[in-house]
Amino acid sequence: MLTKEELPECPVATTVQLIGSKWKLLIIRNLRERPWRFNELKKDLDGISQKVLTDSLRALEEDGIITRTVYAEVPPRVEYALSELGEAMRPILDSMAEFGYTYKSATKAAATGEKH
Amino acid sequence: MLTKEELPECPVATTVQLIGSKWKLLIIRNLRERPWRFNELKKDLDGISQKVLTDSLRALEEDGIITRTVYAEVPPRVEYALSELGEAMRPILDSMAEFGYTYKSATKAAATGEKH
Repeated sequence: MLTKEELPECPVATTVQLIGSKWKLLIIRNLRERPWRFNELKKDLDGISQKVLTDSLRALEEDGIITRTVYAEVPPRVEYALSELGEAMRPILDSMAEFGYTYKSATKAAATGEKH
Repeated sequence: MLTKEELPECPVATTVQLIGSKWKLLIIRNLRERPWRFNELKKDLDGISQKVLTDSLRALEEDGIITRTVYAEVPPRVEYALSELGEAMRPILDSMAEFGYTYKSATKAAATGEKH
């Protein structure tokens, strides 16, 4: 986790520092459903590179937002899940989903309006 | 505004496409207080370049999230504010602020714990 000194004063800026990137937000969106494996995430996140996915997962783990669990199987299974702290991000994703619906409705209404 | 066809199916991904960048999130954080002028934003957003601020404001305006108002003064005053649609983003920022506080508390608790 980051130390208090490394975090901005503003709480929104703190959150932005932790998850203010397209891919981190989409990873957390997936993990709030259930734990995911690396290759599943890679397949689902259209256009993400191996490096960016690796770096994003490592940063989220270091910041205490996700956990990485290795299951002693052959081959070993590695799963990523939201930590307890990461679970506290759920309201952010919920409000983002709600805004997405609002925006889509507005877009649709604008398109219909233009036709008349 | 984007057309329905340009938006991802997933509502979270839609929102991420609109504001999934550090600077856009921080601009919206500021605009939810009151309208801001370009130079005020430039001064407040530590480290943002003229180009990135211009591009971010233009994208937010094109996507219907902020408005740009020119007041006929000498010199002309230009103000950026949340649109009605942008106002619907308030819960996202509120939950980001709340998470920021939670994260800071956890960080502080971890630091105190380490000392004992």
